[in-house]
Amino acid sequence: MHKKLFIPGPIEVSEDVLQKMSTPMIGHRSKDASKLQKDISDKLKKLFYTENEVLLSTSSGSGLMEGAVRCCTKKRAAVFSIGSFGDRWHEMAISNGIEADLFKSEPGSVTTPEMVEEALSTGNYDLITITHNETSTGVMNPVEEISNVVRKYPDVIFCLDTVSSAGGTKIEVDKLGVDICITSSQKALGLPPGLAICTISERAVEKARTVKNRGFYFDLVQLYDTVKDKDYQYPSTPNLSAMFALDYQLNRIMEEGLENRFNRHLEMAEYTRAWAKKNFELFPEEQYASVTLTTVKNTRGISVKDLNAELGKRGYAISNGYGNLKEKTFRIAHMADLTLNDVKELLAAIDDILSIS
Amino acid sequence: MHKKLFIPGPIEVSEDVLQKMSTPMIGHRSKDASKLQKDISDKLKKLFYTENEVLLSTSSGSGLMEGAVRCCTKKRAAVFSIGSFGDRWHEMAISNGIEADLFKSEPGSVTTPEMVEEALSTGNYDLITITHNETSTGVMNPVEEISNVVRKYPDVIFCLDTVSSAGGTKIEVDKLGVDICITSSQKALGLPPGLAICTISERAVEKARTVKNRGFYFDLVQLYDTVKDKDYQYPSTPNLSAMFALDYQLNRIMEEGLENRFNRHLEMAEYTRAWAKKNFELFPEEQYASVTLTTVKNTRGISVKDLNAELGKRGYAISNGYGNLKEKTFRIAHMADLTLNDVKELLAAIDDILSIS
Repeated sequence: MHKKLFIPGPIEVSEDVLQKMSTPMIGHRSKDASKLQKDISDKLKKLFYTENEVLLSTSSGSGLMEGAVRCCTKKRAAVFSIGSFGDRWHEMAISNGIEADLFKSEPGSVTTPEMVEEALSTGNYDLITITHNETSTGVMNPVEEISNVVRKYPDVIFCLDTVSSAGGTKIEVDKLGVDICITSSQKALGLPPGLAICTISERAVEKARTVKNRGFYFDLVQLYDTVKDKDYQYPSTPNLSAMFALDYQLNRIMEEGLENRFNRHLEMAEYTRAWAKKNFELFPEEQYASVTLTTVKNTRGISVKDLNAELGKRGYAISNGYGNLKEKTFRIAHMADLTLNDVKELLAAIDDILSIS
Repeated sequence: MHKKLFIPGPIEVSEDVLQKMSTPMIGHRSKDASKLQKDISDKLKKLFYTENEVLLSTSSGSGLMEGAVRCCTKKRAAVFSIGSFGDRWHEMAISNGIEADLFKSEPGSVTTPEMVEEALSTGNYDLITITHNETSTGVMNPVEEISNVVRKYPDVIFCLDTVSSAGGTKIEVDKLGVDICITSSQKALGLPPGLAICTISERAVEKARTVKNRGFYFDLVQLYDTVKDKDYQYPSTPNLSAMFALDYQLNRIMEEGLENRFNRHLEMAEYTRAWAKKNFELFPEEQYASVTLTTVKNTRGISVKDLNAELGKRGYAISNGYGNLKEKTFRIAHMADLTLNDVKELLAAIDDILSIS
């Protein structure tokens, strides 16, 4: 039996979007391929509220996160972490020989604008990475307040991980001043995994041109120049199947309307949070709770593993806590094309299993 | 109208394989995902005649080529090139700050065992890269003779690019002593692009453990350790759609039988070569002509562009020459699930368009 996925990626993909994954192949150096890639870019620019160029990468989001910190750091990177995916960004810098410092917040807490101010004011850094939405804890960082600080330092390249938020909440790249905004297909955009996406500012590209040893596959300069010089084509053969599906799904997203889509995510989040507060507790402070994923503190001491096994029999899957938070928390993702009704059904099933009246 | 692809990737994908791309999602940390990935690995070990471990990467083959030269070179890499994809391997080394020398053969010629002997006997190198099948020229290197030389140097890691040959001809990894054998989904394996594959020897892994700054996404040690320690799972979310299709396609390949599949490729190649010799000339020496792709010397001075446009109207696509060889050559790929009948139909269409009696 297929389990409806309420996990933070891979997510439940709509049947018609899945069907687009079966589109017959075309040559990746054909005009049809250029058109496909340009159409996708144009729609993604709307989704990210940006005039910056869009790059696609056949990889997970991690690939572009690595490319960003590697290609655009000359001096030192300030890596802010509110969980596992922030820590990973630091590991990426170090494993590439990039000088980087890790600024960690407690699990469940945010990166504060004050922390960012304190770090950047030292003048030690020329790149900053921020996690917008941390799926290991269910926390969404106050990106507007953070960006107000970052914009005071025009020599700092601003990299934002929106892997699990883009498509589920408004991210105004140009207004926020984000230089490299990264996401991935298998989260709130509602597609299978296999494609990563970023927007990139011209100043980030120009900065990267001055950095040595940027590598090949995730060299953002090569990706950018190939898109620009070769009519939206790519240095290597891209994941065309995912691109056919992405193009189609972006049409669906635009038909739903961005504001409607963001509101739907908020409604699902608010319903799930209310349920969590009534029966358990929210893990993060409510004002920083994610709109795509709710992390619930397991105050009843239930066996999350057993709960998920029972849910599995009914055709649902949620996520246990991440890493050290296993069994201490559990996670319900409500993103992409799931509806409020889907969420209500899931929570009713949990109520039934746990005999919550 | 869909064009049947006789280009060297993306290739024509069978309808039932395409349908598997639409398989609904599962969690990538689930037991089902582990099983899927282990099943794929077991079958790929048979296809590569190896007991070495298999790693999958959500990228094009270029990603693993970069990972191999970056992770396993401590001293200096000897990069042998018979065309664009060999040159690319050198570029990958240099762009990662890896010391490497490029040994180029003339377009249409092979890497000779003597060239390899001369380079390795200097003692300067601890890694060698060889292109098995070069799609820019249609040349297949004499990999057995080359491997006889490489095996005399037990401290040299042997990397082989079989991106456009694996699945179309026998590559006996263990017998040849290949440490890292790399391929990609969208060539002779008969799948859409989006997944790269390599086999890796334990000594290559152990060597890589001693190399610094291996990066993150293409760190072969991290990929290997995650596969080993986490029951065939991956550090990042993999391209599950392509894995469902790959698992299915490997069953189809085993049902056809490896020898039958390799013979089918040889038959298509021999038919195409005979046609080319009758009407044009072969670009490479016949003994080194690829079994997955025939490069034809344009001795009639036809317009390849016009020919391809006419073919397009009839539902076929071939490839013009690569780079400088454009219009001077053209390329007919005959790989994956294409049949001798498909090839006959295509060549008859070309005969008709060119009024070749």
